[in-house]
Amino acid sequence: MFLNCDIGESFGAWTMGMDEHVMPFIDQANIACGFHAGDPVTMRKTVRLAMEHGVSLGAHPAYPDLQGFGRRSMALHPEEITALVSYQVGALSHIAGSEGGILSYVKPHGALYNDMMRNEEILEGVLRALSSSPHPLSLMAMTTADNRKLRAACARHDIPLILEAFADRAYDEQGFIVSRSRPGAVHRSPDTIVRQACNLAEGLPIETIEGTSLNLEADTLCVHGDNADSIAAVRAIREALGERV
Amino acid sequence: MFLNCDIGESFGAWTMGMDEHVMPFIDQANIACGFHAGDPVTMRKTVRLAMEHGVSLGAHPAYPDLQGFGRRSMALHPEEITALVSYQVGALSHIAGSEGGILSYVKPHGALYNDMMRNEEILEGVLRALSSSPHPLSLMAMTTADNRKLRAACARHDIPLILEAFADRAYDEQGFIVSRSRPGAVHRSPDTIVRQACNLAEGLPIETIEGTSLNLEADTLCVHGDNADSIAAVRAIREALGERV
Amino acid sequence: MFLNCDIGESFGAWTMGMDEHVMPFIDQANIACGFHAGDPVTMRKTVRLAMEHGVSLGAHPAYPDLQGFGRRSMALHPEEITALVSYQVGALSHIAGSEGGILSYVKPHGALYNDMMRNEEILEGVLRALSSSPHPLSLMAMTTADNRKLRAACARHDIPLILEAFADRAYDEQGFIVSRSRPGAVHRSPDTIVRQACNLAEGLPIETIEGTSLNLEADTLCVHGDNADSIAAVRAIREALGERV
Amino acid sequence: MFLNCDIGESFGAWTMGMDEHVMPFIDQANIACGFHAGDPVTMRKTVRLAMEHGVSLGAHPAYPDLQGFGRRSMALHPEEITALVSYQVGALSHIAGSEGGILSYVKPHGALYNDMMRNEEILEGVLRALSSSPHPLSLMAMTTADNRKLRAACARHDIPLILEAFADRAYDEQGFIVSRSRPGAVHRSPDTIVRQACNLAEGLPIETIEGTSLNLEADTLCVHGDNADSIAAVRAIREALGERV
Repeated sequence: MFLNCDIGESFGAWTMGMDEHVMPFIDQANIACGFHAGDPVTMRKTVRLAMEHGVSLGAHPAYPDLQGFGRRSMALHPEEITALVSYQVGALSHIAGSEGGILSYVKPHGALYNDMMRNEEILEGVLRALSSSPHPLSLMAMTTADNRKLRAACARHDIPLILEAFADRAYDEQGFIVSRSRPGAVHRSPDTIVRQACNLAEGLPIETIEGTSLNLEADTLCVHGDNADSIAAVRAIREALGERV
Repeated sequence: MFLNCDIGESFGAWTMGMDEHVMPFIDQANIACGFHAGDPVTMRKTVRLAMEHGVSLGAHPAYPDLQGFGRRSMALHPEEITALVSYQVGALSHIAGSEGGILSYVKPHGALYNDMMRNEEILEGVLRALSSSPHPLSLMAMTTADNRKLRAACARHDIPLILEAFADRAYDEQGFIVSRSRPGAVHRSPDTIVRQACNLAEGLPIETIEGTSLNLEADTLCVHGDNADSIAAVRAIREALGERV
Repeated sequence: MFLNCDIGESFGAWTMGMDEHVMPFIDQANIACGFHAGDPVTMRKTVRLAMEHGVSLGAHPAYPDLQGFGRRSMALHPEEITALVSYQVGALSHIAGSEGGILSYVKPHGALYNDMMRNEEILEGVLRALSSSPHPLSLMAMTTADNRKLRAACARHDIPLILEAFADRAYDEQGFIVSRSRPGAVHRSPDTIVRQACNLAEGLPIETIEGTSLNLEADTLCVHGDNADSIAAVRAIREALGERV
Repeated sequence: MFLNCDIGESFGAWTMGMDEHVMPFIDQANIACGFHAGDPVTMRKTVRLAMEHGVSLGAHPAYPDLQGFGRRSMALHPEEITALVSYQVGALSHIAGSEGGILSYVKPHGALYNDMMRNEEILEGVLRALSSSPHPLSLMAMTTADNRKLRAACARHDIPLILEAFADRAYDEQGFIVSRSRPGAVHRSPDTIVRQACNLAEGLPIETIEGTSLNLEADTLCVHGDNADSIAAVRAIREALGERV
């Protein structure tokens, strides 16, 4: 079980995230590519930081919406999505290469991520960008109770799939993340977070918000580096799961 | 002697340039990368068009200034220049690769081009982006009467240099292009343009605005695809120089 | 019956629309405000052109999406919509005032216009921007077979409503514009366009795509200044409707 | 003697500055207008906060450079500067008006401020935006040992001038602020800062970096709300100068 984190989300004079503090504990860095956050200088700095810590490099492409931090859905044509994912992935991949690194996967950000999970045409748009890449790339996407459609789509494009789950979010019986607007949607207790992380890592069922048991496939857990509390949670998960290989 | 042209300068709903009409006559396409013109969809379309015509792919990176079309000088730190050139080159290079093409050179655009020609720190900023690229890239830059400094800078970074001259612009005795604000700066007569192109191609001296003779090294001529007149000039130059190899 | 036209849609080095050619024939200029098109210099130039021709000044605010020309729907919170409409309206209003003009109405652009017509919360977001304006502004919106809801919403905010219809678009029995994807959606024949314009102006029914009769309230007709054909259509409508008052 | 502060410099998801903490101590809020910082929602929120505290509203327009926070000089034509200042001032003025407030002055930001202080054409570009404004606006600019040229330029345009000085920056004998690159350029000691503030307020000479005495005209002191230290300095200056009127 790996730990992945959204990173490199500063922009120009604005700082966001405690990248230096979370980097030692994670395996995979989802690096912003300039459309929702990140700028060329920040991207290079972030690639260097990740490489110093032996963290895998991933692209975190988004809708072109700095003002909305890529969190506002935009009605783009799938061909536009393919092109803008290729653009952002290429920019980061080249900066990584110029530092001696290799970009290995892509995790769409924010509204693009959500839209991709519920709209097959948008998923196709993303996958076409990955399958046309001159070097191999995996897709990181959200696990649910039934990943067959997602697996099939990736298989059609010959794209390896990395399934991510959340240790700090409640799931419902159908295997979907509970909306933040609902009470109990976000786990606050470190014990609960660590327990859910360990169960996911060991292939054991987790408890849903309804109290039932749920089995979820997962290759990686999404963690957060926003503040001291989330860094503490990442550290606790890391210790519970054991050292990075 | 090659012909190069700035291309792919449309943006979203705005069209600029007669790319389809000029592409059959040129050897090298300087493709906009999204910072002064071009967007991901336009970039892919432009790469495809260039490849259909067997035209070499070049990146045309610029200052981040859509509103000013990259023509307004910006006081950027050389490290910012390195990072933004890497970003733009990477985005285009990846899109080219996803279409089966290879990006072979970089020609900075507008104010960045001019600033690079007169400021060594900015030239260094550009060259560092090229020398750190994971795949080889040449630099296209302006020829003058004395290219020794420019050659030396490129040699230090092990970057091949492509020298470009202009068939439709008057030169002064020092080998610099005459400012557009001065009468006679731009050749309007097709005969004059073709004669200057042929002389440059054959290594013969051209006539300066002062009436003296000037020898200029040149590997490529910059031509324009803005309108019917400029397309006619390109066609005339192409016919005079002979077919593309 | 007035004629309104989207105008000032150039951006930086890119030109769009034949503003000088269409301005003599219209009554109301919907001026782009920088978010989908238009830039500060273009906006001032457009205000001057409109004022020279005695054309009313309207703001044409949009989603923040230059790349998509404001045609791509964005999932914005109504408060974000209020703020961005106020911002754009204010920028144009001030530029108009600095030229001695007065901004009199607002017509949202593209996807924002469409979203406002089918989503009451977005309409509320727009109306709150207008009702909080320190100077009075009308809303220009699309007429349908039943404008009661729209009228009620405007009345609640004490905002005068200007209803616009299209002379060159087919309507269906419900009074909605036929989607461009359907054959016959756009009238090409000048005769049909002029007849629909005259009927709308005289309060006579127009023929729907199904062949039935439809009565539409309308204060203004949306015309286009994109190319020579559309300018010819505007001129024909103008001549049929009679001179501007 | 007033206190002014750059404020509203957050953008979208990025927070900058401790606006709530500094607002109670200042008289004039220089509010970012969206080109280097600030977005429509942030601008409205900032206007409300300033009005709650009875703080005067000023516009803080900048070059169009979010990535560089408006700190990178851009080679703009004076007409472009007039238009972009009008645009930004108008956007903020309208938002202020929609909250029942009135924009009273303009202080250009960052590189635009510096360029205006040393280039008369750029100053003219700014002043033309202010003098063409439909409502009266003052200019806030930097005091030096000799303000005659600046006063004359403002007088020609009938624009009231607000001279600002810095309590925490060292001045040289010529009355210019000492560059940050030089040791001793920034006062760290609260005592020194408060003493310089009081001397400026009482019309007494301050000590230059060379140890000589300097008389500076000043109507307002520029203070900072970036962090706890700068807030403490503002509070100390406020206490020393006496309560706001």
